Amino acid sequence: MNIVDLLQQELGDLVDTSAEMLEQARADRSGHRSAGRPLAVVHATTVPDVQATMRIASSTGTPVVVRGAGTGLAGAANAGPGEIVLSTARMTRILEVRPEDLMAVVEPGILNADLNAQLAEYGVWWAPDPASRAISTVGGNIATGAGGLLCAKYGVVRDAVLGVDIVLADGRLMRLGHRTVKGVTGLDLTSLVIGSEGRLGVVVGATLKLRPALEGVPCTIAADFPTVRDAAAASSAVTASGVQPAIMELMDAACLAAVHALLGLPAPASGTAQLTIQTDGPAARDEAERIADVLRNAGGAVVLSEDPAEGDRLLHLRRSMHTAMAALGTTLIEDVAVPRSAMAAMFDEIARIERTYDLSIPTVAHAGDGNLHPNFIFEGEEVPEKVWAAADELFRAAVRLGGTLTGEHGIGVLKSRWLAEELGEDQWELQRRIVEVFDPQGILNPGKVFAGA
Amino acid sequence: MNIVDLLQQELGDLVDTSAEMLEQARADRSGHRSAGRPLAVVHATTVPDVQATMRIASSTGTPVVVRGAGTGLAGAANAGPGEIVLSTARMTRILEVRPEDLMAVVEPGILNADLNAQLAEYGVWWAPDPASRAISTVGGNIATGAGGLLCAKYGVVRDAVLGVDIVLADGRLMRLGHRTVKGVTGLDLTSLVIGSEGRLGVVVGATLKLRPALEGVPCTIAADFPTVRDAAAASSAVTASGVQPAIMELMDAACLAAVHALLGLPAPASGTAQLTIQTDGPAARDEAERIADVLRNAGGAVVLSEDPAEGDRLLHLRRSMHTAMAALGTTLIEDVAVPRSAMAAMFDEIARIERTYDLSIPTVAHAGDGNLHPNFIFEGEEVPEKVWAAADELFRAAVRLGGTLTGEHGIGVLKSRWLAEELGEDQWELQRRIVEVFDPQGILNPGKVFAGA
Repeated sequence: MNIVDLLQQELGDLVDTSAEMLEQARADRSGHRSAGRPLAVVHATTVPDVQATMRIASSTGTPVVVRGAGTGLAGAANAGPGEIVLSTARMTRILEVRPEDLMAVVEPGILNADLNAQLAEYGVWWAPDPASRAISTVGGNIATGAGGLLCAKYGVVRDAVLGVDIVLADGRLMRLGHRTVKGVTGLDLTSLVIGSEGRLGVVVGATLKLRPALEGVPCTIAADFPTVRDAAAASSAVTASGVQPAIMELMDAACLAAVHALLGLPAPASGTAQLTIQTDGPAARDEAERIADVLRNAGGAVVLSEDPAEGDRLLHLRRSMHTAMAALGTTLIEDVAVPRSAMAAMFDEIARIERTYDLSIPTVAHAGDGNLHPNFIFEGEEVPEKVWAAADELFRAAVRLGGTLTGEHGIGVLKSRWLAEELGEDQWELQRRIVEVFDPQGILNPGKVFAGA
Repeated sequence: MNIVDLLQQELGDLVDTSAEMLEQARADRSGHRSAGRPLAVVHATTVPDVQATMRIASSTGTPVVVRGAGTGLAGAANAGPGEIVLSTARMTRILEVRPEDLMAVVEPGILNADLNAQLAEYGVWWAPDPASRAISTVGGNIATGAGGLLCAKYGVVRDAVLGVDIVLADGRLMRLGHRTVKGVTGLDLTSLVIGSEGRLGVVVGATLKLRPALEGVPCTIAADFPTVRDAAAASSAVTASGVQPAIMELMDAACLAAVHALLGLPAPASGTAQLTIQTDGPAARDEAERIADVLRNAGGAVVLSEDPAEGDRLLHLRRSMHTAMAALGTTLIEDVAVPRSAMAAMFDEIARIERTYDLSIPTVAHAGDGNLHPNFIFEGEEVPEKVWAAADELFRAAVRLGGTLTGEHGIGVLKSRWLAEELGEDQWELQRRIVEVFDPQGILNPGKVFAGA
């Protein structure tokens, strides 16, 4: 019996072989597309569905690509010929909310924004807020170790997950981690699974660490600077001042101009870069005023508002970035991170690479944590070789400045050729062998993250 | 040539075989002592010293126990016959402090308190604050995944380490993690090493995530309750109120009475339990007042002070706990954690176990994160079988309430017999195989954490 028949015999209507669905499963939001259509998409609705799929896959040696909402930016969830797609997008239940323990247990397919909408009724929230939160799943956030805008103050996914339930390649269910905020029983496999991009197991449940709803009114600041270097230096000065913003975003001149054009606003003065900063919590106003002083001393033209509508308007510029980029051409969004004090130097490197390769690389940064998203803009569907060559220089520059080639998007297929360079051959090999412990046959997302393995 | 000769040939005076040192290396602060003296203690001062030791150990198949200040509470650093002790206590340098990046790079042997004293000059601090911080090393804090009093607000060690450098069993140096606050290149081996109790590699350096120095004056609250159950319920109400204390400690009646006796204070009313709470940061006063209201509504007799000297006096009672316990007899300090709402139920279980076994189990708790330290008091050096039987019931009760058998002290030798029960056989075996990937010969801290492996 062929594999699709085996799946259908066991899982019936959950097995989807429609051309539309198979096409969809070839690509994520990175623009990368696999070589061809996968065998089938299994729409799991329960843990036993996932286990049944993995048992068939392991008994037949068939590769499995786990997929949530397909919003990844590194190609990790893209499936190709001969592969089963295991979708957890229909596993969307919240199984438990315990506001008194600041904890919730959820299925992986729930969208980040849907989860937070439901948690709000309990006076709690889950802090990770990737820019994709309206369309990305909690399971996907965990698989990629996602970040977002609020990380500098509220941490990344790894700081907000107490435990994960995974189904191993052979179909066994394993519950990792704790329901307590502290716990050191054995190795921390929860943290190991976070950011493992589908290589260790299928995330079928998560115990999340919540925060009490924020009090008070947030304050929002927009500050214009004559150059991106000035803006980067100002953001470093904010970090060094010891006042912790909830959000600190930086748009370089090309981004700011593109956003203004998209929104029909008057063009900013040539070269102008902008910082958008938000403070929250009980001391929001006081903190905002102190940050405004730092920004003015660093040469910024500062607007500060306590009005939520005005705050939304100011942040809306930053949130329109991706749409503005899409209007310029096809985009390859990169994701380097550097120590915060090296941000200005990283912008110098980006300017140099733009000149060397005659490219436009509008860049936005989560300036509060040194995470830059340079957007390579080009014509057509395929990433041109020139862009990869420029990206290669970008990665090397980031690593040279003490940084890393991915802050929050992951390695997937798009960055796997640079992984060994950052980790070193010894660590690359050690990591690959840890993958083997979880998945001896190598059927979970083969070739992703660890190229050729 | 025998192993000590090989070590001396390579490492000269760093190899210590004095009876005093060998005796000292048999025990930590748990009271547990190994079966006999180890072969030698190597006082490493550099990374190459560690590498040389590990190369000799791996070429001869000799077990190595890594040791910092020996303040552990689970026996993980206790060395016995046939074992080399590799001490990193002399590797105490701070290699780099970057306040503008809220980052420092340190050697493992520096004491937590010494580190923070030096960081204070830069206006930054490292948040993990185990009760042992004056005498425990940063490397030991990392090896155990230590917690402390400030965890509920400021996180545990895992939240405060960006990267670790380890020497593998075969002597290779491997740098894990990042210098950036975000980074998702490959598997998170940094988190895997944190809390691994010397089984994966020798921690020879750490890149720490710092915080800006706190502003304002902390506020301290002491609140007395007629029963420990009332105090536990009140602490849960504080958590549920959404106000985040920096410290929230609970002493049951036996602890409070012992501390009062030690300090020569008048005896508290029979049954009285106490919460000690501190708020800090810009809204400290306001938060303290709101917490005081919650405590009064929960039936507490509340004292609130903004005076630092009075705050120190109130916290001094809690900090005198261990000395007060030592005055009562020999102590086995346990370390269960439960979801915060289950704390009152856990105290009921402890009372039940006290009655069943006719034991006194004074208990203190980091109430802000549900981490309880029941102190089994007995006569003599050896833990009586009755105490182990009671501890067994304690662990099972914690797990039944959704908790774990160790919140911050680790498994070591003292709890290894319960590990498989909490993890399940499948996960225990998976973890053991991950250890094998790092240390195929099994020479790093054999038998610790994973009994018989």
